[in-house]
Amino acid sequence: MQLEFLGTGSGQPSKFRNVTSIALRLLDERNAVWLFDVGEATQHQILKTTLRPRKVEKIFISHLHGDHIFGLPGFLSSRSFQGADKQEPLTIYGPKGVKEFVQTALRVSETRLSYPLVFIELTEGVIFDDKTFRVVAAKMRHRIETWGFRVEEKDHPGELLVDKLREQNIPSGPIFGQLKAGKRVTLPDGRILDGRDYIGSAQKGRVVTFILDTRPNDNIEALAVNADVLVHESTYGAGEEEAKMARAHAHSTSVNAANAARRAHVNELVLTHLSARYIGPMVKTLVADVRKIFPNTVVARDLDIIDVPLKKES
Amino acid sequence: MQLEFLGTGSGQPSKFRNVTSIALRLLDERNAVWLFDVGEATQHQILKTTLRPRKVEKIFISHLHGDHIFGLPGFLSSRSFQGADKQEPLTIYGPKGVKEFVQTALRVSETRLSYPLVFIELTEGVIFDDKTFRVVAAKMRHRIETWGFRVEEKDHPGELLVDKLREQNIPSGPIFGQLKAGKRVTLPDGRILDGRDYIGSAQKGRVVTFILDTRPNDNIEALAVNADVLVHESTYGAGEEEAKMARAHAHSTSVNAANAARRAHVNELVLTHLSARYIGPMVKTLVADVRKIFPNTVVARDLDIIDVPLKKES
Ligand SMILES: [Zn+2]
Ligand SMILES: [Zn+2]
Repeated sequence: MQLEFLGTGSGQPSKFRNVTSIALRLLDERNAVWLFDVGEATQHQILKTTLRPRKVEKIFISHLHGDHIFGLPGFLSSRSFQGADKQEPLTIYGPKGVKEFVQTALRVSETRLSYPLVFIELTEGVIFDDKTFRVVAAKMRHRIETWGFRVEEKDHPGELLVDKLREQNIPSGPIFGQLKAGKRVTLPDGRILDGRDYIGSAQKGRVVTFILDTRPNDNIEALAVNADVLVHESTYGAGEEEAKMARAHAHSTSVNAANAARRAHVNELVLTHLSARYIGPMVKTLVADVRKIFPNTVVARDLDIIDVPLKKES
Repeated sequence: MQLEFLGTGSGQPSKFRNVTSIALRLLDERNAVWLFDVGEATQHQILKTTLRPRKVEKIFISHLHGDHIFGLPGFLSSRSFQGADKQEPLTIYGPKGVKEFVQTALRVSETRLSYPLVFIELTEGVIFDDKTFRVVAAKMRHRIETWGFRVEEKDHPGELLVDKLREQNIPSGPIFGQLKAGKRVTLPDGRILDGRDYIGSAQKGRVVTFILDTRPNDNIEALAVNADVLVHESTYGAGEEEAKMARAHAHSTSVNAANAARRAHVNELVLTHLSARYIGPMVKTLVADVRKIFPNTVVARDLDIIDVPLKKES
């Protein structure tokens, strides 16, 4: 599981930061990639990575401002032309309106996709749940309907301790399956085994939270509690003038993000969606300021890959 | 007058060629820039140039395929934020449908432009005419409604030959204006002057023709006749297989473009909209082949600037 930042700027593209898109690479976990927002030229950024568009299984759209969605029609069109299997379905989770935008663009341009495209309108709570992952959405407070997302990996069940079984001369066969299921098994030689003695400890699933374009609000903490990584917008840095601008535009400062990270007890904070004003030494200052509040913080740059490692066994 | 190629590829962006957009720089002529097609990430390409979005006065859209229009919403939005004078109006000439696409994108994203945006639906013939320029549109033959454009600069009237007047001791004053207007003037000393003897020769206006995404058709020659520069799509190079693909997808080969250039007696042919298959030595081969038919040919690369010089005085 890795985060790959395709665009880390805000509002308009600049020489150093494209508009927002973040890939959550779940290649080991489900042979898939999820995108969070698709600003213009996201497909161009993908050309510079090893990501393959047809691996993109789901797209989550935080809100409909142009710098978060104008890359959708191009990305969706190009995905039709790439890879051997062009028919992998794609699901877009977003606010009402994303469907109209995409469908108008595809209809007007007479683009026929090679794969099924499904739209799911966002609602509060669990928006996706399967064997390996769960996604929860909650409303943010921006100038337009906006959503934050919490991606929860399900816990990995403990592995069968095959070496321990071999040491005790227990023959392999169907009983391995019964032991792994935690059952009690009687061997032909009369020994009684408890499956729970032969299963390693479970591994906690990871949690990544995405908070894009919002002023501070209580739902942030709810979505981010105990997250391994909190990705949080930081359009502005620390300072009174910055705080004023953030309030005026319904955005967050780096200080808002750090306070949310601290209150939610996250492990790591990754700042993104920086105003184009922050270049060179100003980024260093921004990071130094925020680390006084939440030390384990980084500012994402375009094309950065950030690993989300499994936690130590519990 | 220069052409600046912002994107010279076809279909999807590739590492070397962005999707289509061409700027006609008319800074000396009318302090303006015109864009022909606006593929995705045109605003990103503009960031690499000296072009200023607010100088873009007119946009001409050849057809509604995604690789020619998906950059419009982002470009139009960003233009609101740039430069001191944010209120310069912008006119988009395009097929029916471009208005719906743009207006849906702006409405859904709650984007309010700082300037007036005017849409003009394309019709056969003269679509724009003022003191200095005239634009003519004609239908092409592609998979979707498509238009070619002929941009005609009006002739520059001859300059008043002030040195000649001074040599003949003719005093400056209101009569200079009368002479420049070609009138006959009687001086206080009785001499009679004919304005036509004191005006230099007129300079012919320049003509640039844009032919994007079409199979060969008779309207191309009509739009391109005697053009200084013919910009012509060349999705494919020379060869039988290529000709077959061009026919199948309603596109042109380099040979089609060269034949059109020859028949229309243009001065220079500039090929663009190349398939991503043409890289490195394949481009050299493509150019060599086409120069056998029309020697004064170049293949545009992204960010190339091609000058359109005034003709020698006639
Ligand atoms: Zn926003
Ligand atoms: Zn086309």
